[in-house]
Amino acid sequence: MPNLPQLENYQHRVNQLLSEKLDTLMVNDEKLLDAMRYGLLIGGKRMRPYLVYTTGQALGASMEDLDGIACALECIHAYSLLHDDLPAMDDDDLRRGKPTCHKAFDEATAILAGDSLQTLAFDFLANHPFSVLVDGKRTKLFQLLVQASGYSGMCGGQALDLSATNQAISINELENLHALKTGALLKASVAMAAECVESITASQKTSLNQFAELVGLAYQVQDDIIDITSSEEELGKPKGSDIAANKSTYPALLGLEGAKQKADDLYQESLQALATLPYNTQNLAEFATFIVRRTH
Amino acid sequence: MPNLPQLENYQHRVNQLLSEKLDTLMVNDEKLLDAMRYGLLIGGKRMRPYLVYTTGQALGASMEDLDGIACALECIHAYSLLHDDLPAMDDDDLRRGKPTCHKAFDEATAILAGDSLQTLAFDFLANHPFSVLVDGKRTKLFQLLVQASGYSGMCGGQALDLSATNQAISINELENLHALKTGALLKASVAMAAECVESITASQKTSLNQFAELVGLAYQVQDDIIDITSSEEELGKPKGSDIAANKSTYPALLGLEGAKQKADDLYQESLQALATLPYNTQNLAEFATFIVRRTH
Repeated sequence: MPNLPQLENYQHRVNQLLSEKLDTLMVNDEKLLDAMRYGLLIGGKRMRPYLVYTTGQALGASMEDLDGIACALECIHAYSLLHDDLPAMDDDDLRRGKPTCHKAFDEATAILAGDSLQTLAFDFLANHPFSVLVDGKRTKLFQLLVQASGYSGMCGGQALDLSATNQAISINELENLHALKTGALLKASVAMAAECVESITASQKTSLNQFAELVGLAYQVQDDIIDITSSEEELGKPKGSDIAANKSTYPALLGLEGAKQKADDLYQESLQALATLPYNTQNLAEFATFIVRRTH
Repeated sequence: MPNLPQLENYQHRVNQLLSEKLDTLMVNDEKLLDAMRYGLLIGGKRMRPYLVYTTGQALGASMEDLDGIACALECIHAYSLLHDDLPAMDDDDLRRGKPTCHKAFDEATAILAGDSLQTLAFDFLANHPFSVLVDGKRTKLFQLLVQASGYSGMCGGQALDLSATNQAISINELENLHALKTGALLKASVAMAAECVESITASQKTSLNQFAELVGLAYQVQDDIIDITSSEEELGKPKGSDIAANKSTYPALLGLEGAKQKADDLYQESLQALATLPYNTQNLAEFATFIVRRTH
C-alpha cells in the first residue's frame, strides 16, 4: 500500500475535532449521543478530510479554516454509512470489521443518529470560527455541501444504486451513479477547500474539479476491484458482497483486466489535470496513486 | 374549530414554493423525487410556515424573505414525519389518512427521501434570494435551524420519545421531551421570522420565544387530548394510538381534565407573553387559540 503523506496527522486532527464537538453537545438522550459517536468515530480512512487538508495545504489555505470543512464532510459521509447499512438498504452487519450501528444499538437509533449527523455537518459550517476571508464565503460552502450531499448528489446516487440492484445497467449509468454516490462528496472536498484561498482563478478551480471527478471515479473502480480481489480480513466485510447483492460493478461490465485498465486511465488523466496547476500538487498526486494502488 | 386568518393563503403559498423547488431538481432517480414530493406535498396543516408568516407579518418582515424560512422549516418537519413513521420507529401505516411514505413506496426510499428533504431544508436557506437585510443574517438562520432540528432539538426529542416508550416518565421529563421534539421547530419558526426585521429588540425576541415555547407545549398537550377524544376519521389514524404504543401522555399523567386545564394555563400564559410586545399580535393570539381549541 502506498504511503500517504500526513495521513495519520490529518486523521488524528479530524478525529480530535469531531470528538470535541460531540463533547460540547448537551446530553439529552445518551443512547443517541453514543450512537452518533459510534458512527462518527468507529474508524475509517478519513479520505474526505484528507482530501480537504491536502488540497487546502497545496493552495496555501489555513488549517483552522479547513477544519470546519473536513469535519462537515466527514459527518455527511458517516451519516450516509449509518443509513446505507440499514436492513432496508444494504443490510450490512459489519462495517470496518465491527458491528454496524443498527447492530450495536438498534434500527431506530441508527436512523436518528444518521439524521443527527447530517444536521451536525451543517452545524460545523454554521458555527465554525472561519477566518474573515472564509467567513464571507460561508453561504458558498453551504451551497457546495447541499449540492454534493442531497438529492442532486450523494442521496440521488444511493437511490440510483438501489434502483440498479438486480438490473443490468450501462457503463454510462454506472459512472453517473458513482459520480453522485461517492464522487460528489470527494469533489466537494476539493471545491470547498479551494474556497479557503483568495488567489485561485476560475480555470484553476475547473482543473481541480476535474482532478477530483477523475479520482472519484477511480476510487469507485478500485473499490469494485478490491471487493473481489481482497481477503475478508482486509475488507472488514464479506468478500464479493457487491456481486452477492447483484449490484453492477466495473469488473462485471468490463472484466477484471478492463476494470484495472479503466482505473489506470482515470489515474493518468487525473495527473494531467493536476499538471496544469501552478501549485505544488505532489501530495494530491500521491493521493491519486494511493486510490488506485490500495488493496483494501 | 376556530378560524385561522390567512391560513389557506399561507398554505397555498408554501405549497406552491415547495412544488416549484422540487421542479427545479434535475431528475436523477424518479422514484426518490416522487417520494420526496409525496412526503412534502401530501397535505398537512403547515403550522410551521403559518407561524413564520404570521410572526413575520406582525413584525413587518417581507413575505419574500419569510418564504425561504417557511419552506426550510416545512422540509425539516416533512423529513421527520417520513422517518418517524418507519417500522423501526413509530411503525405507522397512515399519515393524514393516506399511506405513509414507506407504504406508498418502500422503506429504503422513505429513508432516502427523508435524508434528501433534510438537505433540501438547508438548500432553501443556502439558496433563497433573501433581501440585503436578511442575507447578512444567513449564518444566524443556519444556526437557528441546526439548533432546532438536530441532536439538540427535534432529533434529540424523538430519541427521548423512543426511550420513554413503555416506561413511566415524570411530567418534567415529558415536557422536556416535547420541548425538543415539537417545540424546538415551532420556536425556530418564530425566532427565524424575527431575524427578518431590523428593529426588534433582544427583550422583544425573548417575549416572542416565550410565546412560542408556551404555544409549543400547549400544542402537544392538545395533541394528546385529541388522540383520545377525536374520531379516527378526524385524526386520519387509529384513535388512542399513543396510548396503544405505551407512550406517556398528558392525560395519562394529569387525567383528561387536568390536561385540559394545563392546555388552558399554557394558552393564557402565551397571551401574556404576547401582550408585552409593541406589535399588533392579534393573529398570533388567534394561532394560540386555534392550537388549544382544535379537535383534530
